[in-house]
Amino acid sequence: MQQQFRVGMVGLGTVGAGVARILTRHGDRVGRRAGRSIDLKWVVVRDLKKPRDVDFEGVRIVDDVRRVIDDPEIDVVVELIGGVDTARWIVLEALAAGKHVVTANKALLAEHGPEVFAAARKADRAVAFEAAVAGGVPIIGAIDVGLAANQIQSLAAILNGTCNYILTQMTQDGLAYDRALADAQALGYAEADPTLDVDGTDTAHKLAVLAQIAFGADVRAADVPRQGIDRLEIADINYARELGYAVKLLAHAKIGDGGLELRVGPSLVKRDLPLAQVHGAYNAVRIVGDAVGDVLFQGRGAGMAPTASAVVADLIDVATGRAAITARVLDRWSTDSPPIPLLPASQGRRRNYLRFSIADRPGVVAALATILGDRGISIASVIQHEPAPADEDGAPGPVPLVIMTHLAVERDLRAAVAEIDRLDVVRAPSVRLGVEE
Amino acid sequence: MQQQFRVGMVGLGTVGAGVARILTRHGDRVGRRAGRSIDLKWVVVRDLKKPRDVDFEGVRIVDDVRRVIDDPEIDVVVELIGGVDTARWIVLEALAAGKHVVTANKALLAEHGPEVFAAARKADRAVAFEAAVAGGVPIIGAIDVGLAANQIQSLAAILNGTCNYILTQMTQDGLAYDRALADAQALGYAEADPTLDVDGTDTAHKLAVLAQIAFGADVRAADVPRQGIDRLEIADINYARELGYAVKLLAHAKIGDGGLELRVGPSLVKRDLPLAQVHGAYNAVRIVGDAVGDVLFQGRGAGMAPTASAVVADLIDVATGRAAITARVLDRWSTDSPPIPLLPASQGRRRNYLRFSIADRPGVVAALATILGDRGISIASVIQHEPAPADEDGAPGPVPLVIMTHLAVERDLRAAVAEIDRLDVVRAPSVRLGVEE
Repeated sequence: MQQQFRVGMVGLGTVGAGVARILTRHGDRVGRRAGRSIDLKWVVVRDLKKPRDVDFEGVRIVDDVRRVIDDPEIDVVVELIGGVDTARWIVLEALAAGKHVVTANKALLAEHGPEVFAAARKADRAVAFEAAVAGGVPIIGAIDVGLAANQIQSLAAILNGTCNYILTQMTQDGLAYDRALADAQALGYAEADPTLDVDGTDTAHKLAVLAQIAFGADVRAADVPRQGIDRLEIADINYARELGYAVKLLAHAKIGDGGLELRVGPSLVKRDLPLAQVHGAYNAVRIVGDAVGDVLFQGRGAGMAPTASAVVADLIDVATGRAAITARVLDRWSTDSPPIPLLPASQGRRRNYLRFSIADRPGVVAALATILGDRGISIASVIQHEPAPADEDGAPGPVPLVIMTHLAVERDLRAAVAEIDRLDVVRAPSVRLGVEE
Repeated sequence: MQQQFRVGMVGLGTVGAGVARILTRHGDRVGRRAGRSIDLKWVVVRDLKKPRDVDFEGVRIVDDVRRVIDDPEIDVVVELIGGVDTARWIVLEALAAGKHVVTANKALLAEHGPEVFAAARKADRAVAFEAAVAGGVPIIGAIDVGLAANQIQSLAAILNGTCNYILTQMTQDGLAYDRALADAQALGYAEADPTLDVDGTDTAHKLAVLAQIAFGADVRAADVPRQGIDRLEIADINYARELGYAVKLLAHAKIGDGGLELRVGPSLVKRDLPLAQVHGAYNAVRIVGDAVGDVLFQGRGAGMAPTASAVVADLIDVATGRAAITARVLDRWSTDSPPIPLLPASQGRRRNYLRFSIADRPGVVAALATILGDRGISIASVIQHEPAPADEDGAPGPVPLVIMTHLAVERDLRAAVAEIDRLDVVRAPSVRLGVEE
């Protein structure tokens, strides 16, 4: 048995409490799987006076992170404070002091991946981050090790449990977005300020990390075209259902001749595909590899225990020495090998769901179809329902016209939609969603 | 860059050809992920004259396995011949000669796990076997590393693609078992002699391996109570559907106070659960861990490229040195720690689906319900349909009576069913299937 492995943890929110709980209550099990005892020595908190629901026998709680970084006995620093600036400083200082780092911080990696991993290389230390994407689902390890024989060709993932919970409520109970969000907040599935979840930023951070792991791409979250669920209307969920699709907030990556295509947005997924069956606060990642074909990983994407499961798995991986090997071999965000180029968003190709609000007049559908056809956009199916009731003045209501396209180049589609939206028979801005193949 | 890593592969069937293809065509990619070049030096085949659809430039093809085992340059032996006796000899000889071993052989591990891993320990070499269970789905690594922080509480898995394909055909197209099997054979999803697949043996082998990995249990396949799909009637699939369930051949493991409960058999799975949505030749493993909650892994369970994906992942894991660490730390089938006891099958508890063929006479249903009730078996739901048409003599046909029980102890259920089957109003042996919670 090797000597004990000492942990300093920074941050004691939900996930931190979960990690402390596993390490203190299940130390035997964790030690057996690491081949050595893993001991939580320090926990750094902001407010020492706050009451804590964890048994901290033998753990020193402090409010000064330097106590951890300067302690030569500490082998690994677990960064769980979130945010970018302070976390970045802590991680860089820990590496410079010769500590390994375990982090759940997707924003940090998405924004400062190259800097963090350059520092790790310089220090010959590992940065492990299984918890940064899809919570308890061991997707990073699966890509790094289990699927290592593959060229990954595409990836489609539900990476934000808050959004998936809201979309599930909208779909199953017919709730409008605002009601579903309020429900999610009441149940603790959404934060008081849910902006970063519902506008797609969190998903874009995670996709930026996955793009490095799966494709070697060097991407900032800002490079990922994204659309949130915050302006999604129940009408579109209902039309999608009528067409045989569920609407999911998907992170999408696909490698093609022109480079790597990335995007985040609400997308239509055929109802019988596994991703369409992922309900509530779950996450799921579907990967297509050239050898393995399609594989799906599904589980809880957030919450105390699932995320702690991933953090402690990383601690075990670091304590055994495996994580250092992986870090050395895979050489993340390395400048040695040129990163795969990103396909400009305008050159992406996908199927589209379009909803127009048009005047109930002869010739309008033909006019729209002509504009699409002139740009080479081919129509796969159409739904046109009865007109909405006339308004108070007796003017005829707008008619919803839903069009599913075949594969179309984004630039052409944008141009066509812009041209259609300028027609005077179009009564409201069009709605556009992607369709996952 | 470390020195090259040299592979001797024994067996060149479907999977072997897939492994050779990845190593020879994608050597750069594999080498980059291993941190060193992985070179296929020897391939051992039975018949040197058979034509091969693989480019073997630089590979020596021989029919004598000793050439590989005695070659001091060889770092790892890949065993892909299947079967138990010869495979066992090759693996033990390879370990004794100081080679690591990669194998896809679940039967070997299920029957001789303790001997193989004792030899590996003695030789301080790794035996890697990601391909032995669920083909390309990286489930062994997920349990060993990704979920290492968890006490796994239960596992339910679809591990035989042939059976799942047949069940899918029976369910979706209403085919009888024999027709669905013939279709599967015509499409190459079932072998000419499908016995080991359809009688549950293959699934029991894989469950025995998973029971060691997930629970530290020392189990032979013969210890696993099992039932195949070969006597499954379409009537039961239809009744299950009526009750809201799909029928799947499940490997089931659950840890409880009395020990580890294992079984293999056709089971009813609620239609909206992810396992019920696994169609065709796919495999899936659902795991519940005390921290992570439930996670699902799904993908292709067999076939050339998916299984080769797992074998090459193991080669990379061995070449980097990670596999040796995992082997040392996890100490499989070790005699040091006492294995978890198995719960005797008679003490298992599950919900049951029962179908009786009874005479259409007053009082029969009450008699059956009384026998069940007397054994403490509680009825959750009942379906009784119209009687079958009268036979040629005008005698009334038997009535199918379907009963879903609540949780029941296996011993009580067996006794009750035996008692019922002895009643003279019962016209055919009863049918019994498990229900997955």
